[in-house]
Amino acid sequence: MSPKITTELLKQLRQVMKSPKYVQEPVQAYIVPSGDAHQSEYIAPCDCRRAFISGFDGSAGTAIVTEQHAAMWTDGRYFLQAAHQMDNNWTLMKMGLKDTPTQEDWLVSVLPEGSKVGVDPFIIPADQWKRMSKALRSAGHDLVPVKENLIDTIWTDCPQRPCKPLITLDLSYTGVSWRDKIVALRSKMAERKVLWFVVTALDEVAWLFNLRGSDVEYNPVFFAYAVIGMNTIRLFIDGDRMTDPAVREHLQLDSTLDPEFKIQVMPYGSILSELQAVGAGLSPKEKVWLSDKASYALTEAIPKAYRYLTPYTPICIAKAVKNASETEGMRRAHVPKGTVTEIIAADKAEEFRSQQKDFVELSFATISSTGPNGAIIHYKPVPETNRTLSVNEIYLLDSGAQYKDGTTDVTRTMHFGTPSAYEKECFTYVLKGHIAVSAAIFPNGTKGHLLDSFARSALWDCGLDYLHGTGHGVGSFLNVHEGPCGISYKTFADEPLEAGMIVSDEPGYYEDGSFGIRIENVVLVIPAETKYNFKNRGSLTFEPLTLVPIQTKMIDVNLLTQKERNWVNDYHQKCREVIGAELERQGRHEALRWLIQETEPLIRVQ
Amino acid sequence: MSPKITTELLKQLRQVMKSPKYVQEPVQAYIVPSGDAHQSEYIAPCDCRRAFISGFDGSAGTAIVTEQHAAMWTDGRYFLQAAHQMDNNWTLMKMGLKDTPTQEDWLVSVLPEGSKVGVDPFIIPADQWKRMSKALRSAGHDLVPVKENLIDTIWTDCPQRPCKPLITLDLSYTGVSWRDKIVALRSKMAERKVLWFVVTALDEVAWLFNLRGSDVEYNPVFFAYAVIGMNTIRLFIDGDRMTDPAVREHLQLDSTLDPEFKIQVMPYGSILSELQAVGAGLSPKEKVWLSDKASYALTEAIPKAYRYLTPYTPICIAKAVKNASETEGMRRAHVPKGTVTEIIAADKAEEFRSQQKDFVELSFATISSTGPNGAIIHYKPVPETNRTLSVNEIYLLDSGAQYKDGTTDVTRTMHFGTPSAYEKECFTYVLKGHIAVSAAIFPNGTKGHLLDSFARSALWDCGLDYLHGTGHGVGSFLNVHEGPCGISYKTFADEPLEAGMIVSDEPGYYEDGSFGIRIENVVLVIPAETKYNFKNRGSLTFEPLTLVPIQTKMIDVNLLTQKERNWVNDYHQKCREVIGAELERQGRHEALRWLIQETEPLIRVQ
Repeated sequence: MSPKITTELLKQLRQVMKSPKYVQEPVQAYIVPSGDAHQSEYIAPCDCRRAFISGFDGSAGTAIVTEQHAAMWTDGRYFLQAAHQMDNNWTLMKMGLKDTPTQEDWLVSVLPEGSKVGVDPFIIPADQWKRMSKALRSAGHDLVPVKENLIDTIWTDCPQRPCKPLITLDLSYTGVSWRDKIVALRSKMAERKVLWFVVTALDEVAWLFNLRGSDVEYNPVFFAYAVIGMNTIRLFIDGDRMTDPAVREHLQLDSTLDPEFKIQVMPYGSILSELQAVGAGLSPKEKVWLSDKASYALTEAIPKAYRYLTPYTPICIAKAVKNASETEGMRRAHVPKGTVTEIIAADKAEEFRSQQKDFVELSFATISSTGPNGAIIHYKPVPETNRTLSVNEIYLLDSGAQYKDGTTDVTRTMHFGTPSAYEKECFTYVLKGHIAVSAAIFPNGTKGHLLDSFARSALWDCGLDYLHGTGHGVGSFLNVHEGPCGISYKTFADEPLEAGMIVSDEPGYYEDGSFGIRIENVVLVIPAETKYNFKNRGSLTFEPLTLVPIQTKMIDVNLLTQKERNWVNDYHQKCREVIGAELERQGRHEALRWLIQETEPLIRVQ
Repeated sequence: MSPKITTELLKQLRQVMKSPKYVQEPVQAYIVPSGDAHQSEYIAPCDCRRAFISGFDGSAGTAIVTEQHAAMWTDGRYFLQAAHQMDNNWTLMKMGLKDTPTQEDWLVSVLPEGSKVGVDPFIIPADQWKRMSKALRSAGHDLVPVKENLIDTIWTDCPQRPCKPLITLDLSYTGVSWRDKIVALRSKMAERKVLWFVVTALDEVAWLFNLRGSDVEYNPVFFAYAVIGMNTIRLFIDGDRMTDPAVREHLQLDSTLDPEFKIQVMPYGSILSELQAVGAGLSPKEKVWLSDKASYALTEAIPKAYRYLTPYTPICIAKAVKNASETEGMRRAHVPKGTVTEIIAADKAEEFRSQQKDFVELSFATISSTGPNGAIIHYKPVPETNRTLSVNEIYLLDSGAQYKDGTTDVTRTMHFGTPSAYEKECFTYVLKGHIAVSAAIFPNGTKGHLLDSFARSALWDCGLDYLHGTGHGVGSFLNVHEGPCGISYKTFADEPLEAGMIVSDEPGYYEDGSFGIRIENVVLVIPAETKYNFKNRGSLTFEPLTLVPIQTKMIDVNLLTQKERNWVNDYHQKCREVIGAELERQGRHEALRWLIQETEPLIRVQ
């Protein structure tokens, strides 16, 4: 992986930062966040502005360019990758380490007095704008919105914004019709006494209308906004997607519906002016509900006195708690089907043995890394770094797929030869952490961050740790990373866990230059049976939805307790039963033999 | 415990809330926080305004009185106590439960349009003022400062503000002179480019000047403020305390000192006008550093542009990390001495048996509760509730003392007859939680909240929990509850742990109407030895400073792992060695025999 040479690009950017054609007054710094106008985590190629300017293409990072400096903030998952992908023009700011300055503190330390700091108001969330603007102002600087995106002005071969066809989802997948979702949303609006609700997150638009798209890789969403009034529904979306008869019927665009369910379709680009018109027409006490993570541009369209901002929208919270149809779908999605294109670990392992050289060319949304590449937490194989799998190195595979009935995300770590004692030791600590979370029992309403240390305790006892959270919310045929719940040492964005939520459980260990280990299942929050049931508050635990064997060759059985051995054996028994039955039905006998072999019970050998 | 009848008092308060003598305009609600002007947790009798108006005298709670309602917010430690102490005029708002409204939300729901909500600006911290003011304003109400405290106007027999003599601490106790502390503080001020630092917390004033007092029960502090400039030191303190020759010499008030260490002594009540004068004399870029928990009144004395607010002051952080003299002192304070007035558990247990009736008259700062009283987490025996100890009930003793060399805080739970299987089961889960925290190994710089669930895991597995945090910072001959670190599911006020910090480890379990269990040691954060040492980040663990036997009769040994049994046996061995040697030296043979018997090793009996 050789770094992107950015000298010329930075020169051009610094020129437009001073050019009266683009900025009213020169800006001494320009911020390039990693999101799009919807604050998506995964973004379309046309929105990869931070990757374009810096070379670093991980999912999280913020670039700031001043006249003298260029700096990139990212978190522990990406320290190695960012260091590899960026040239010497860039300083890497390792977030989460004690001595790393915040963006605000760094700006204050490098800027000349009375500087202007520019940012695209559509790309920066309102809450971040507020925090940064305040910090800069108190040091005598100004955060200013720059209407034209300065990266776009120098990005000559910027790809077009995608506009792919939509998929409609019927009741058997979603469990609730879009009309009923609108009714529920309006009742939440009435409760909070707001007249309008602005849907800005792409997965929230998709969920609300029971539609899916493919505008963004891996996330089945499409570019759109929606504005929901008590009697009106406006959908802002481009292209000829609304001419598709299936979509027209799904949204009942041509039926003479009750007027309050009539969807007005408007151009994607008209959201700002429409919202400004809404804002201008408000009477006192009429409020507009937005996420506090909506863009600064859209938030500013509503005068301050009329805004009702919350960290989580009612859609975000409703979406996180899966209904029976969705939960059932997630279960089905985790079992191989005759028609699926996903390759389960059984098939993969077969392929690895027969076709090792070809493997990294498979076209899956996959982290496939061997040996030292495994230590790059969000590694994605590219031709320059492509390593051949071998019997001498640990292999890490993190793959997920989207099905109409659910979203999968699984990581397994394997050795095709003989792992060293140290590799087995580390793997076993990670497994102990995985089990500690998966088998944890906790009171109803516990926040996920309180479970994070369970995943680390066995590693900590030996002085090992990993620099990422333990789990993220998972959407239902939606984004594989979804709020508002998760399991992380970070305590923001952490709504209490309740039955029906789905998260990942994925502790790891990464040895720079040597190997990476991660064991990940998608797990469903379910009620638990406990002796005393928290005085009727209710008990919760997790049920693994992912059913893929955990390589027993990597386990140092003597480091496991009896309880942990039982957990592994019960889990493998369930893999045999559920996956085995399906392989049997499909007549995949070789895979079945492999499954049986990989799920042999652990026995203490000491 | 019969509730306080507050009908008449509330009537009087509602009258002054409308009286032009005290308020410019009538206030429709009046907030009575529990703190004093220094935001102390424990307060002098003259500051117990919330207890006066409501009857509820726990350490945490906020009362709000409107024309129609009177409501009290408190946390899980005090649900039972508050319910017992308040009459039917009051609604108890159980903080931490899902359906309990915040104070702001509740006010918005009950107030008529355009209401004024009054509060004493000296009692409310600036950060709370800001949050509440914003929430009220967005709903069309106003938070207004009421200069005269309205409770004081109806509190006819309000006690006087205490003004007790001071104790000076020499270098052998403090390890650092007050001059050197001022030098270190000024260097932090220079780093942050501030010209003035305002010391508002009582323990910070006491720590900075190496002085102690006894104005507040149990906390060795005195009423004072300090304002530190780059060349000036102003101490705001009342009474003739500065005439004491020992104090004069300690503070070098009469020596011809370098002018920058000359202390100007001013009246306590002049802080506001002096600070306003400082604020008025500032030039642009000259900043004044205050805690964001300083009172709204003092914060407002400095114009907004000149304020530098931080959640933790440099004094708070320096104070939390104990130096060698302080750590050594804490160790000494935990061992019985010939001259101490503390009665260690050995002596107490002897007394209990011989003099049970007298026990609650002992004059210790003590939670001494038997049977159902034990379930009242911060119970304090009073004549009406006084229960006789018996061989049929669990007895909980939480006691602490102040020594010149340190502060102790210990809880033990005992049974003098035969505990039931259920009582032993619960006790053993609590013990497992205590051990899980005490023996935890974690990376340097971990925040305490990440350890909180370790204390709960064994309880959670059976559907049990406790409604309080697991530990608090402990001062060095200072407040027994001290920031900025702790171990709690609450994540605010939680600076990373580092070697030298001292916290309590005190999980519990409380069965309403039956019993309370808590096992508390004071523990010192120390470096740990780990196999891989977090890539040189460093490993931490805890060393118990408290050395008091844990009653083995209460332990169901078969619920402990081998590791946990070893922990108990090692701990008891250390009690024998350290405490035994001291008892031997003092010739206290009966206590020694008791100690030996109580520290017999646990053996698995299954």
